[in-house]
Order: sequence, then structure tokens, then C-alpha cells
Amino acid sequence: MTDAVKDAPMQYDNLRIDLDRLMGRIGHLGEVGALEGGGVCRLALTDEDRKGRDLVVGWMKELGLKVTIDRIGNIVGVRPGHENGAPVMAGSHIDSVATGGLYDGSLGVLAGLEIVATLNDAGITTRRPIAVGVFTNEEGARFAPDMMGSGTHQGSLDLQTMLDCKGIDGSTVEENLQSIGYAGPAPVGGFHARCFFELHVEQGPILEKEQITIGAVTGVQGISWTEYKISGVSNHAGTTPMRLRHDAGYVAAAIAIEARTIARQLGGDQVATVGVTELTPNLVNVIAKEALATVDLRNTDDEILKQAEARMAAFVDATAKAEGVEVQSRTLARFVPVDFDPSMIALVEKTAGDLGHTVRRMPSGAGHDAQMFALNCPTAMIFVPSKAGISHNVEEFTQPEDIRAGADVLLQVMLATAE
Amino acid sequence: MTDAVKDAPMQYDNLRIDLDRLMGRIGHLGEVGALEGGGVCRLALTDEDRKGRDLVVGWMKELGLKVTIDRIGNIVGVRPGHENGAPVMAGSHIDSVATGGLYDGSLGVLAGLEIVATLNDAGITTRRPIAVGVFTNEEGARFAPDMMGSGTHQGSLDLQTMLDCKGIDGSTVEENLQSIGYAGPAPVGGFHARCFFELHVEQGPILEKEQITIGAVTGVQGISWTEYKISGVSNHAGTTPMRLRHDAGYVAAAIAIEARTIARQLGGDQVATVGVTELTPNLVNVIAKEALATVDLRNTDDEILKQAEARMAAFVDATAKAEGVEVQSRTLARFVPVDFDPSMIALVEKTAGDLGHTVRRMPSGAGHDAQMFALNCPTAMIFVPSKAGISHNVEEFTQPEDIRAGADVLLQVMLATAE
Repeated sequence: MTDAVKDAPMQYDNLRIDLDRLMGRIGHLGEVGALEGGGVCRLALTDEDRKGRDLVVGWMKELGLKVTIDRIGNIVGVRPGHENGAPVMAGSHIDSVATGGLYDGSLGVLAGLEIVATLNDAGITTRRPIAVGVFTNEEGARFAPDMMGSGTHQGSLDLQTMLDCKGIDGSTVEENLQSIGYAGPAPVGGFHARCFFELHVEQGPILEKEQITIGAVTGVQGISWTEYKISGVSNHAGTTPMRLRHDAGYVAAAIAIEARTIARQLGGDQVATVGVTELTPNLVNVIAKEALATVDLRNTDDEILKQAEARMAAFVDATAKAEGVEVQSRTLARFVPVDFDPSMIALVEKTAGDLGHTVRRMPSGAGHDAQMFALNCPTAMIFVPSKAGISHNVEEFTQPEDIRAGADVLLQVMLATAE
Repeated sequence: MTDAVKDAPMQYDNLRIDLDRLMGRIGHLGEVGALEGGGVCRLALTDEDRKGRDLVVGWMKELGLKVTIDRIGNIVGVRPGHENGAPVMAGSHIDSVATGGLYDGSLGVLAGLEIVATLNDAGITTRRPIAVGVFTNEEGARFAPDMMGSGTHQGSLDLQTMLDCKGIDGSTVEENLQSIGYAGPAPVGGFHARCFFELHVEQGPILEKEQITIGAVTGVQGISWTEYKISGVSNHAGTTPMRLRHDAGYVAAAIAIEARTIARQLGGDQVATVGVTELTPNLVNVIAKEALATVDLRNTDDEILKQAEARMAAFVDATAKAEGVEVQSRTLARFVPVDFDPSMIALVEKTAGDLGHTVRRMPSGAGHDAQMFALNCPTAMIFVPSKAGISHNVEEFTQPEDIRAGADVLLQVMLATAE
């Protein structure tokens, strides 16, 4: 993963994927767990997930891949190269949120299969093996944490702890793996990739807004989620003078405004969101006794993210004191930022340009399986535009021509690194 | 209601109410619809309301009052005077909110009965008749609008429209009046009071905070309730740059902060409350697509209240435009301020002082039956302290000694105006 790789000429630079075949598989997988009116519900380790897995495993076998299932249910299909050793890997997930789209996750898996199919058709055997991975429970919608399969695969999460995780219905990951027949025999983490690529829809509006086809993803933002539970005093909205109020709702609102202020003042990639606000008793003429608010802070730079966290904590303390309310804060999630490998990023960027696509470097605001691989091997992601930035929504959509562009970039970067 | 009345010497200035008898009735009525752990649920026109009405009507008859029930279910008991004509009237309501206290409303009715009992025991016949009124559905918790009985009684609300009102379970006021046996034969509004007094718990913290026993209520604040329904764009909290957001939740929070700013800048009696805030989808990592917020503005001065309304409307327009969201606003309620009669306010104030109680003039932040009478006859209210300002809550509490003080003031002002 040095300049030698980056500057290597494309060996098969006229090779292209078959868009119809790829779109056919996306449509076919999208029928599994299909919702009326579009989109899918394919929550991890449900019967719909099993049907999706069966479909993908069937395709892998048709394509001649050697399929293994590990103990956390990750599926890996390997296409041999001239040499043995760690494969060049593409992968993502096929589980979805409850009202998910057809592309989030599935695109990365099915584009991987399309690379294999394209190589098969062209009769190419790469120097190094090629692998396609399907990782268990990336979404975290049914079992926490998210990125469970890839995190366990890459050693960041403990296997037994993950198997014992209870989902929203009380059953464990292990029980569900067994019931859908994907509690595999292969050890987890006994497998290393030479490098890892994930093609994914952006899930944000930047590429569309800037009319750019390919995002060369530089890393994944660090994420800080904090829940604030504010306890004030419920009182009559008409009879309580302003100076005697202890209004939990006011403090929740002040937190939301401060989040915006912090993001604006820190600038750059810093984002801040108050997505949850709940008042109790939530009546027009009653000062709120309790309020719940969450703050989601993200930055690619962990030092700036820490500054944002510290500013918010200080603001909440001062505002609570001034209003005479109690605030309990709880960290819901904290991930440090992940930087992808500079040479891999450069390879994606150069390949996109060589193929005639507009390209820009950008961070990922969302978490992805790739970030788990980034800790252990050179990793990069390829983003393609999401219509209106919409994701985790049945209206998620990416233009077929953008899917073609992303898959062609994936093909060429895998060829470049597999040679 | 001239200086002649105000300056008249008390005719029976040593006469006092019997606190034990009054507290006994408060306790007895409080058993009707009693909640476990204290407080009552006696929603208007329910079976609990009927039982409470039956109890009060029984007491009225025991006390020798001539009881009439009108078509909207108002109960009026009259004690004859030496002369015929419009009576001096005390009154309030016995319906409660779903988790109400023992004093809100009931105190005004039962103190009226206590005045009658005290006069009976002393063998006093006043020059003018004395009346005690119990008005239907003051709370508005089951049927909107509130102050239904007194508003209809005083001609502000239309009888047939009120009888046709449907409650939260879909049945009409008229059906419920009939089913509890309180669809009376007496015409509504055929009855005029010479003057009207309502003893009530403050439902706010001012008297307790200032250690004052009696509030001479100067009027009822004007009330303006507006609901804002904000429509933005739901998006990913990590992948959507701050500049591309249309965050409905942010606008709701900004409204809550602006409400506080308006109240602080206008000063005086101005209060402003955002008691309702709801976000959709209300998830930690999703920018809110929709938000609902209510603004409750109150002032004793309608011109200043209008200024507050105009400022909020302009702020919402500007903020919505800046954020790129749509806002629909809807007026939920609008009452102009009501001023009580200056000579009646002065009478309450002087009487409290003559009886040795601390007293202050103050507006009422909440609506009361008295405001409906104020349109047609000299009216005043007497406030007694609410512990911690708590009301519409099972923990509502007023010290018995404060109840005694308030009822003694009521006795003396009724005697003064009935002579």
C-alpha cells in the first residue's frame, strides 16, 4: 500500500461491471423483507435476514466462491488467486433498519459479487485472492451495538459478550443465530484481509448538492451521544412568575440552541444535533417538570470533538444552575474518529478520476463496517450520491449510473490491490 | 358599589366563620372521586361530579337555601334577604382536572355555604339575598371550553352550542347532563347577581413566597395560546452538514428561547411558556422532520399581550425562513384580560387589613368563573396561598388558617355588600 501500488498502471483498465446484473441482484434482494410502498425491513437475524443471507450465499456459490460462516454469523466468500494469503476484500451488510432502503449495505455486498462475476466473465485470476464479506448486524436496530459482526471479526468486540447480547425482544444473538441457521463453525477473527473496500451510498446530501459522482472517504467521524435528563418543577403557566420558574423544557431548548452554536463556532466538519426532546407533562399551560434531550456531536478530529463535548457539558451545568434544575447526563455512545489509509484514499480518488468521474474527498458522518477493518488493514470507502441525502428511509435512492460508477471504481481498486 | 359601600362600617365585624365545619365539608367533598394517595378526579358531568353535586345540593337544602338547577347544570342556592332583587353571590366550581386537589373550586363553593351557615347560626337576615353558585365544567378537562357554566350563565357562551359540545369520549354535554340528572329546568341567564365574589386558592407561589395571607385579585390575565407545527426535512445527524439542515426541532427550541426572551424584555406581569414540544421521529441520530410546540402568553394588559404575540409571530416567520422550514400556526385560545371592579378590589383589600391579615393586590394568571361575572356585575376574587404554588395536582394544599382567613374576608365582604 505504498506509492508503488498507487502509481501502478491498471492491468485491466477497460474492464467494467455489468450494471443490469448488479441492479437485478439489488432488486432481487430488495424483495426480501419488502415493505408496501418501497423499502425493506430486514432486521438482523430475523427470518427476513435469513432469506436474504440464503439468497446471497446461493449467489456466492453460483459464482464459485468458497463460503464460510463464522460463529457470529459473518459470511465470507473467497475467490482464489494465483497466490495464497490474505485476500483483497469487499464487504458490507444486508441487515436494515425497520424502514430501510434498498442500497444501504446491500450495495457494498452485491457490488462485491458483481466484481467477482466480472472477473469470472473476463477469465481473470488475480494474483491475490478476492473476498466478499457480509457482516452481521451492522445497523444495531435490533441488537446493540451496531457493527457487531465486523467489530467482532476485527477483534474490537468480544465474541461471547456479543453472542450473549439481548435484543429488543429479549432473545440473545446466539439464540437467533441458531434459529436462522447462521451460527457458523468458523472461528471469528482467524481471518485477515490484505486490504478492505466498502462501496456505500453517502446517506448525506453533499455529493448530490455538488454534482460529484464519487466520494473518496477519508475516514469516519468520531461520535459522541449524550442523553440529558432534566428535572425541574411543574407549575401553572399563568400563575408562576418568570423569576420563580424551574423549567425543564426551557433547559432542553437551550441545549438544542447551544448545540447549533457549538457546531457553528467550531466550524469545519463539526455537526451537532438534538434529535430527541420530550417534555413531561407536555401540556400547553404547564411548565415542564421533566425533559429529556439527546445531543449527537460528531467530528473527524477527536481533539475538536472533545472541545465540543466540554463546551456542551459546561453549558448544561451553568444553565441548570441558573434555572434551578437538576440534570443527569449519560453517555449513550462514544466512538473515536477513524482515519482511512492515505494510500487507499489516494487510490480511490485517482481511480475515479481515471475512469472519468468527478470525485471529492469527504469524511463519513455515519458508522460503517469498514471502520472496524481500518484498525487492522489498509481500508477505504467509496461513496456514491444519495438522492436528497435521504437514508434509513424507504425513499433512499441512488441513480443506477452512479451505482455503475461506484462499482467500476470498486472493481479497479480491487484489481489494483489484488495484483 | 360606590364609596358609600366601601366606607360603610362593618355591621357584624366580630362575626367569624367556623373553620372546623368548613374543613369538614372540604374533607367530605374530597372523598367524592378521591384518588389513592390524595387528591380527586371529579371530571365534569361524570358520576363522581353527580355525587359531588348531590352532596352540595343536600347541604344547601339543609341550610335552607332555595336551590335551582339551570339547563347547563349550574346550581344556585339562594338565601332570602329583607328585600327581593339580585343577590350578593359567592360561587365557584366542584369539577376537577383528572389529578386535581381538594381546594381548586371547591373552596369557593364550600366557603359560600359556610357564610350561609354562619349567618344562620347568628340569626342574621341580610338586606339583600345571598346566593351560592356551583358552575358546570369550569376546568374544561372533559369538555371544551372551560368556564362553560359561568360563561353561559353570564351570556358570553351560547346555550345550545354548549349543550351540543362533544367531550373527549364523543358524548355531548346535554347527554351527560341528562344522564347524571342535572339537566335542570331553570332558564340560563335569567338570573343576575348584584355582585359576585370568588374565594380561590392562588395556584401560584407569590403569596407563600411573600408570606402574605390574602390576595386582592385585580383581574384575570389575558391568555393567548398558539400551536406551531413545524415541517422540516428528516436527515442523518452525522452526514448532513449544518448548512444543509432544515431542522424542525431546532426551530421549536428557538421558539422556547424566544418566549423566555419576550417575557424578560416586556417585564411586568408578562409570562411566556412553551409547555409542549414534540419531535418526529424523535431519534438521537435523526434531524427532526416535524416538531410541535405551543406558546402560552399571558398579560393583564391586552396591548402588551398583543405586542408579545406580534413579536413571537415575527420571530417564528424569520426563523422558519432562515432554517428553510414551513410553519403552520393555529390559535388554540385567546381571552382578553378582565379587570375586576375597583371598588370591589378595594373592599377586599380593606376588609383583609381590618381583619388583621397581610394583603396584596395581584392579578390572576389562571381563568376563573368570576371573570365571566365581571362583565355584568361588580366582581372580585380573594386568593389564599397555595403551598409551593402547586395546583392541578394531588399535592395542592392550603393551610387551614389561610382558609379561615380567606373565608372570613369573604363573609365580611358579602355582609358589606348585602347590607
